[in-house]
Amino acid sequence: MLNFESDYTRGAHPKVLERLIETNMEQTSGYGSDEYCNRAKERIRNACASPNADVWFFTGGTQTNQTVISSLLRSYEGVIAAESGHIATHEAGAIEYTGHKVLSLPHTHGKLSACVLKPYLMRFFSDENHDHAVFPGMVYISHPTEYGTLYTLSELAELSAVCREYHLPLYMDGARLGYGLMSDGTDVTLSDIAKLCDVFYIGGTKVGALCGEAVVFPKGNSPKQFMTMIKQHGALLAKGRLLGIQFDALFENGLYFTVSRQAIERANELREALKKKGYSFFLETPANQIFIVLENTKLKQLESHARFSFWEQADETHTVVRIATDWATTQEEVNALLALL
Amino acid sequence: MLNFESDYTRGAHPKVLERLIETNMEQTSGYGSDEYCNRAKERIRNACASPNADVWFFTGGTQTNQTVISSLLRSYEGVIAAESGHIATHEAGAIEYTGHKVLSLPHTHGKLSACVLKPYLMRFFSDENHDHAVFPGMVYISHPTEYGTLYTLSELAELSAVCREYHLPLYMDGARLGYGLMSDGTDVTLSDIAKLCDVFYIGGTKVGALCGEAVVFPKGNSPKQFMTMIKQHGALLAKGRLLGIQFDALFENGLYFTVSRQAIERANELREALKKKGYSFFLETPANQIFIVLENTKLKQLESHARFSFWEQADETHTVVRIATDWATTQEEVNALLALL
Amino acid sequence: MLNFESDYTRGAHPKVLERLIETNMEQTSGYGSDEYCNRAKERIRNACASPNADVWFFTGGTQTNQTVISSLLRSYEGVIAAESGHIATHEAGAIEYTGHKVLSLPHTHGKLSACVLKPYLMRFFSDENHDHAVFPGMVYISHPTEYGTLYTLSELAELSAVCREYHLPLYMDGARLGYGLMSDGTDVTLSDIAKLCDVFYIGGTKVGALCGEAVVFPKGNSPKQFMTMIKQHGALLAKGRLLGIQFDALFENGLYFTVSRQAIERANELREALKKKGYSFFLETPANQIFIVLENTKLKQLESHARFSFWEQADETHTVVRIATDWATTQEEVNALLALL
Amino acid sequence: MLNFESDYTRGAHPKVLERLIETNMEQTSGYGSDEYCNRAKERIRNACASPNADVWFFTGGTQTNQTVISSLLRSYEGVIAAESGHIATHEAGAIEYTGHKVLSLPHTHGKLSACVLKPYLMRFFSDENHDHAVFPGMVYISHPTEYGTLYTLSELAELSAVCREYHLPLYMDGARLGYGLMSDGTDVTLSDIAKLCDVFYIGGTKVGALCGEAVVFPKGNSPKQFMTMIKQHGALLAKGRLLGIQFDALFENGLYFTVSRQAIERANELREALKKKGYSFFLETPANQIFIVLENTKLKQLESHARFSFWEQADETHTVVRIATDWATTQEEVNALLALL
Repeated sequence: MLNFESDYTRGAHPKVLERLIETNMEQTSGYGSDEYCNRAKERIRNACASPNADVWFFTGGTQTNQTVISSLLRSYEGVIAAESGHIATHEAGAIEYTGHKVLSLPHTHGKLSACVLKPYLMRFFSDENHDHAVFPGMVYISHPTEYGTLYTLSELAELSAVCREYHLPLYMDGARLGYGLMSDGTDVTLSDIAKLCDVFYIGGTKVGALCGEAVVFPKGNSPKQFMTMIKQHGALLAKGRLLGIQFDALFENGLYFTVSRQAIERANELREALKKKGYSFFLETPANQIFIVLENTKLKQLESHARFSFWEQADETHTVVRIATDWATTQEEVNALLALL
Repeated sequence: MLNFESDYTRGAHPKVLERLIETNMEQTSGYGSDEYCNRAKERIRNACASPNADVWFFTGGTQTNQTVISSLLRSYEGVIAAESGHIATHEAGAIEYTGHKVLSLPHTHGKLSACVLKPYLMRFFSDENHDHAVFPGMVYISHPTEYGTLYTLSELAELSAVCREYHLPLYMDGARLGYGLMSDGTDVTLSDIAKLCDVFYIGGTKVGALCGEAVVFPKGNSPKQFMTMIKQHGALLAKGRLLGIQFDALFENGLYFTVSRQAIERANELREALKKKGYSFFLETPANQIFIVLENTKLKQLESHARFSFWEQADETHTVVRIATDWATTQEEVNALLALL
Repeated sequence: MLNFESDYTRGAHPKVLERLIETNMEQTSGYGSDEYCNRAKERIRNACASPNADVWFFTGGTQTNQTVISSLLRSYEGVIAAESGHIATHEAGAIEYTGHKVLSLPHTHGKLSACVLKPYLMRFFSDENHDHAVFPGMVYISHPTEYGTLYTLSELAELSAVCREYHLPLYMDGARLGYGLMSDGTDVTLSDIAKLCDVFYIGGTKVGALCGEAVVFPKGNSPKQFMTMIKQHGALLAKGRLLGIQFDALFENGLYFTVSRQAIERANELREALKKKGYSFFLETPANQIFIVLENTKLKQLESHARFSFWEQADETHTVVRIATDWATTQEEVNALLALL
Repeated sequence: MLNFESDYTRGAHPKVLERLIETNMEQTSGYGSDEYCNRAKERIRNACASPNADVWFFTGGTQTNQTVISSLLRSYEGVIAAESGHIATHEAGAIEYTGHKVLSLPHTHGKLSACVLKPYLMRFFSDENHDHAVFPGMVYISHPTEYGTLYTLSELAELSAVCREYHLPLYMDGARLGYGLMSDGTDVTLSDIAKLCDVFYIGGTKVGALCGEAVVFPKGNSPKQFMTMIKQHGALLAKGRLLGIQFDALFENGLYFTVSRQAIERANELREALKKKGYSFFLETPANQIFIVLENTKLKQLESHARFSFWEQADETHTVVRIATDWATTQEEVNALLALL
């Protein structure tokens, strides 16, 4: 059975696993204070061209979003997100659970635009009655977005400028950041992100790690006593090295970027072949997720041969499915899928 | 440098790691719905003699405590714990963060006694004014306790009886459960725990896993929609298999118990030799943690040769330190430590 | 200066004040256990034709909404409301502060329709992936709505039927309930509300009281230990009698309805005269709030003579303002306003 | 039936009620922005000799404590209180409900001492492992305490000095502050409190108001956007004037102090007479609460003639009861009670 359901179906990249094996019997101190965490942090600082960055490791995306957002917001503030944002839709109310509203704004293919954000903020702060409202306290975006789309550098710069004008931290959810950075045509680099965002995370779980996300505060701007807040959220791993070792491996010799690029190349091959075959795309997406419209009868046929992710009903006879490649997808798998489609 | 600082200084037991390697490139479904999770759950049900048990996997102890406790309590209820309980002291207020008070009761060497619990509950419910108080909603114990002590079967049965009389779920934090079960002289088995507790967790992080704790609701008595609450706490791993595979390995052929017993044997050797050498013990502890009183001058000497955990100042010239063995401690390490002491 | 800005600009109805004066030096027990609270509750049960109803008093609307909603929801649930609902817009995130999401649905002139609610619920529960979403746990409506509109009996019955089908409590915010019940053309009575809703509140602050809202659980269906949850929300008044005495007065001989009707009659007079004068209405509203569109120049002129509530900018040269009558508005005031307009 | 059960058994002081009557039909703006609130605030600033103070009105003590404390604490901080503190015992977990732990320290007759506080803070901040603990974020005291005792000026100054050394705001719960300030032998004035505390509240509910507590930030040091946080806690009264008018009356010509002094004089009369009659006192208390030990048989006899508050069982045949006087207690009532005792 071919499986293109998601980018978290396999274990870790072999080099990551290797490093876990090599270091397995070494004894280290706990809670992320070990040398592997330190080395991984240093590598990430370098990759971000942010020598003063604070780096923290988490095990998953919702945990990261919840901890970062609730730690940055004052108690009367909410977080702005696109209506399609992961925190607004698929995290079981994890943000609200910490006492904060997600302030949803309309999106364009998953993206939040400065043209939507700025008027919203102008209206909010010019309204004399905003004392009874939830204050916007930060802005959340994802890159790639939940729709697989990417911000351009100028879109990101515009969002960042609006955020700075209103003194709102800009936070990027980079669950699939590697795939975004390695996409054809993107003009956004990791150091751009480090310059334009106040905090972001580099996703590991979907890009070659067993688990793990690396939160970066590029200017060393972690909230006070952030470690205690991580603990308070149940997000502090006793064997923090599990995360440090993985990111150390992923950021040695650019492995993170190499494996991300492989996923993109597999996705590109699929996209081009599907275009040639005349498939209709739900959205143009440059990264590792492809959204195509399938006839329900076709989908039914495929069911026992290949797995996709159901996205939405297109109409009565068609369905949008998501095909995801990852760091481990092979050309053979791509070809086998194309043979089926 | 010898390191007896804690039982979470190394990676995973080789068999656990092996299983991660073997399964690494297999594709599975996410969020704990894979076959390895299912198999691990089945093995745990068998080990607990609880065929109807619900089993859930978490990555760490504080996360587990926070999610289980906040999911079981009604909003006006608090959790009873010994004053020395981990949730009362070392979890950065993770329980309070979810809106619930930890109702601390006096302890005896880390244990909560039915003789303390029952009068407390009687007084609470007989007080006509308890409408303005936090209601006791469940009872938290740890086994082994934070002081390395163990409940006897009759102590546990008494606590359980009081809890049932007052309709309060009894929850056992088993971060080091394996070491407790394999200690000399204990009369408490896993199936006893499954009978006497309403929920408990089997610690993996400190007993051979990279990370992982297995929560057991022995009578299939999970709270409604528990999975959503796990997600809401940021505690749901996308690659849930990471936990399932580890527990599958740990509960195959009793590995969990075998490795726990090894740690106990190393601890026993240490304990006996230290007794012979005339060391004074802070507490009699049967499991993998040994608390001895060292002269500060001696401690100073040892600093560059061996690591312990600072426990507390005994007096001006003495310090209590904790020595912990784990599943990987070797006889060589024990001998080397004894040579130093 | 004429003041039609809101329905909470004055103190209490003279009869309410009288009763406070008469009883002032009597000594009663605290926290709502006094005879005045008991008598008021009994009168409210009668008015609702709900002999088994539980009745609880609060001091304000947001406090009431927050306490009722957070007490009824399970921790993984959110509350459904119209996007224009007070809890979704003007309560500073009081619901989210208690850990719950407000699930906003589109509204029609402030009303939530069964035609919107039912498909939403069908979709939610048929979606296989709803484990990662916030569960709808209850439905909030306001009557009159924030736009001054009213549900018809059949609309309310339809909503109630959908709620019962999905086992969701239906909660009505009745901050201005008296005005709704006494509006021309409404076919909704207090006993209809008691039959169709699972919980609702009868607003006092805007209908003749100094402060006070009476929450009614018509079938005696208060959540367990509700009093403790009221205390936990800081919502329990030591001198609970302050609320009981006021509602006792308001529900003696139908005073609540008489004074509500007076406000409606004043509003009707205004509405008819404004229609004759050719004013354009933003919305047809039957209750005590009138929304008219004024030229900005006209509004400017009026500023030093009369006060309204700014509602929204209609276009560049026009503004929507809200005119509110209340239990104390006199015909003289109405005439004076009409003379200005 | 004589009633000495508490100091909140009656309505408002006649002058307070008078003022409510006089102003009843005036129209004012809402949410505390009216002229009566402003005037009351100005009077309170004068009484506190704190011209820059921020003053805010609430309806009750638990609400005040919850809103003030949760607004001042960072999310990883808890509030230090005596074990006997109201927030630690009688507020249904209202502080924990907002996510914060109450860090209880031992008390002396209800008082927290600098000798207890300072070593606790020293230990906390010198402990290298405090990253996993709840951080002390502020200090709560009550004056008079729950035991009716009072801090001396030097005790208060010492506490304040410790708090300032550790940058912890000192907060005083003054539910019965008037009685404390007017007690014989106290050397603490309102302006002392304003100098030594960072925030405190002047209780109205128990000192002549229908409801109401005035929070004072003596240096204009309200937390940012405090009004929104008040709203978010459901604590913002639409007719804020209800509180402003009452405090305006209470702080005109020192009424608050005059009526407090009357309660103290009645308490003094009782105390002296009870001493002469040989009654044994549970505690020496200078303010309006008297704690005496009664034989159970005597208590039984009195039951149908007078009401007290049950405090605790002294021994098998004796009970501690609390007798409270208030602003309205008359000499006749005192004499009648003495005749019974």
